[in-house]
Amino acid sequence: MDDPSKYVESLGVAARRASRQLAAMDGATKVAALRRLATSLREHRAALIAANAKDIDAAQQAQLAPALVERLKLTDKRVESMAAGVEQIANQVDPVGQVIEGYVRPNGLRIEKRRVPIGVVLFFYESRPNVTSDAAALCLKSGNAIILRGGKEAFHSNRAIVEILSASLKESNIDPAAVQLVESTDRALVPMLLKLDKHIDLVIPRGGESLIRAVVKDSTIPVLKHFTGNCHLYIDASAATMEKEVREVCVNAKTSYPGGAVCNAVEHLLFHKDVAATLLPKVCADLAAKGVEVRGDDGARSLYSAAKATTPDDWTTEYLSFIVGVKVVDSIDDAIAHVNEFGSHHTDGILASSKRAIDRFVTNVDSASVMVNASTRFADGGEYGLGAEIGISTDKLHARGPMGANDLTTYKWIVTGEGHVR
Amino acid sequence: MDDPSKYVESLGVAARRASRQLAAMDGATKVAALRRLATSLREHRAALIAANAKDIDAAQQAQLAPALVERLKLTDKRVESMAAGVEQIANQVDPVGQVIEGYVRPNGLRIEKRRVPIGVVLFFYESRPNVTSDAAALCLKSGNAIILRGGKEAFHSNRAIVEILSASLKESNIDPAAVQLVESTDRALVPMLLKLDKHIDLVIPRGGESLIRAVVKDSTIPVLKHFTGNCHLYIDASAATMEKEVREVCVNAKTSYPGGAVCNAVEHLLFHKDVAATLLPKVCADLAAKGVEVRGDDGARSLYSAAKATTPDDWTTEYLSFIVGVKVVDSIDDAIAHVNEFGSHHTDGILASSKRAIDRFVTNVDSASVMVNASTRFADGGEYGLGAEIGISTDKLHARGPMGANDLTTYKWIVTGEGHVR
Repeated sequence: MDDPSKYVESLGVAARRASRQLAAMDGATKVAALRRLATSLREHRAALIAANAKDIDAAQQAQLAPALVERLKLTDKRVESMAAGVEQIANQVDPVGQVIEGYVRPNGLRIEKRRVPIGVVLFFYESRPNVTSDAAALCLKSGNAIILRGGKEAFHSNRAIVEILSASLKESNIDPAAVQLVESTDRALVPMLLKLDKHIDLVIPRGGESLIRAVVKDSTIPVLKHFTGNCHLYIDASAATMEKEVREVCVNAKTSYPGGAVCNAVEHLLFHKDVAATLLPKVCADLAAKGVEVRGDDGARSLYSAAKATTPDDWTTEYLSFIVGVKVVDSIDDAIAHVNEFGSHHTDGILASSKRAIDRFVTNVDSASVMVNASTRFADGGEYGLGAEIGISTDKLHARGPMGANDLTTYKWIVTGEGHVR
Repeated sequence: MDDPSKYVESLGVAARRASRQLAAMDGATKVAALRRLATSLREHRAALIAANAKDIDAAQQAQLAPALVERLKLTDKRVESMAAGVEQIANQVDPVGQVIEGYVRPNGLRIEKRRVPIGVVLFFYESRPNVTSDAAALCLKSGNAIILRGGKEAFHSNRAIVEILSASLKESNIDPAAVQLVESTDRALVPMLLKLDKHIDLVIPRGGESLIRAVVKDSTIPVLKHFTGNCHLYIDASAATMEKEVREVCVNAKTSYPGGAVCNAVEHLLFHKDVAATLLPKVCADLAAKGVEVRGDDGARSLYSAAKATTPDDWTTEYLSFIVGVKVVDSIDDAIAHVNEFGSHHTDGILASSKRAIDRFVTNVDSASVMVNASTRFADGGEYGLGAEIGISTDKLHARGPMGANDLTTYKWIVTGEGHVR
């Protein structure tokens, strides 16, 4: 790579060329290609695990946390699950060509709004190697070319996966530039990529807040942000009769994912003052019993003395660990205002029996997902029935919340006349 | 305005506050408020025309082109038409609250994807004063607050319109910050506005290319670009039997709007070589008879000698005037490649009788609107039946092509359980 800007440009040009082929491809061809990808991953299992071993060695030498090393590791079982994931995406309904709306105007013009691929997607991500094959498969299914920029720690694994995918695409007579990896972890390439608005249609950054802010600042390409989840549960006055549900949902929302290190885990609990005395101490004790550190405002600490005092920073923090912030609020409107002010508009829920309170919360909380008497942990493409997801959008435009294959499409207006003039 | 950055921030904070009120407002209240707005505009007709006179004076002193001065002018009839436009928006179906999808998962969780307002929209525009009332009314209808940044040349008119709208909103007990005008035409304020991602959810720039590029470069808020329309018509070999339609559609697409100064006017005609000899000279002569300057490549000039030679720049130019570029292509694939390479992905059409050619063009041309045997001039929210439009998006995300009230909404996932845990 003598000239990084030329290299980056070449990725864009090749992806655009591949995207034109994909946009015109029929569904059966894509299904066959995806099944072949799955087979290729299985066939090259040993090579994948060998490449992954380099990343694991480097991670251990760099003394990465054991949990992170564990997430990075490829095993026979995990390669099989990557392949199975690709097959599952192959079997989904093809979004491309779907008619979203169709009607005839009074002058006889036929108007059709038809779902088409977006074109070229640039995807930044940090996590496990299986995200590489999932994202590539989702883009292929929806007719998009993808440029992958994975985390440094998974570089060898990602390169091996993309090599296998590219070779397999070639066998299916698909332009291998449909799936490309940025073959360098040099950060200087990032702003160059983000200026390729002629060749790239969408950037999806999934990762830490600083990465996302940098992408938004530098990009002249539209960005769909996949930000943090500072999720809340509000326990309404009308939840007085729901002790069992309140305790189960709060504990599940905080602790069901190992270490709480997931964006849809709850970070803060808001108790209405009328039920705080009865429910707050029980919920906090349940959480503490699971190993969760409880932090509270003055109101919470007067009811559960084991809690540490919260600091102002607590309310905006996504802990991503076994810590929870607890607060007593005077009214449902105070809870709504708190969520809208300090939350990240990802997933927030209410536990209540009053229809009026539920309606008020659902209407006024400005979040991608609003949970009613359910754990925040359900905010997930699989749980919503979307099949695989490329991530959870915290943006309001285009796609909000869990994003599946449909959300990787746009539409085209097709207007058919018989020599119509205006 | 002692401190511009404080002023700009105050606009954002007030708009966010107003947007919360709008998001929870029922449809009947919005309809009543919109009707009152229309009445207020009518009642203050004289004041509007007086304020407009200042802009007209300034425009004449600055020796603006007579056509531009004419576009700027408010008359009794134009104020009436602004009021009627607001009433028409009042009568549209309310998009807010519409259930886009709703289903129950196997575990009993009810999932609902419900249409909600986006929040706060920042709108840059340059054109006629009626855009001010149209945009404000569309945002109110869809439950969004709007910050308006109109053209310098219409400043007094826009300020008078917004003052009337604000006073009228107050009478309806709606926060007047639902509609705010940036009370300064100082360009230094623009980058400050574009950093208010905490308070503003969407920027729509509608205007010249340099304005849009500057907005994209500076904005940390998602942008929906309303770019130029470098529109094409391709006349296929199979159009040999359609002389009448070809001649009528080409002339209509170029000349039906005064001066051709509209984004959906056609700028370039591509003739398949098999029909060029018969159709190209007739179409060019028809256009010349309407006062259109014809420019052509060598192929075109060998068939219609009156044409001026095109330069390489011609193919990327949106003339916005009575000029047309004409080219002979060897095949439909060459036409498609030309449109995708040099066009602006706004509106492009095919004139053909072959189903196969039409399918090929429709699938492979990457444009927001694809016209089949119809004039490009139909690319318009009103013609598509959307009611009023806020503009025509040339972006692929969120909304593509003409944007109506529905496109000013996002959605919320509402997930309802009975104490469900994962």
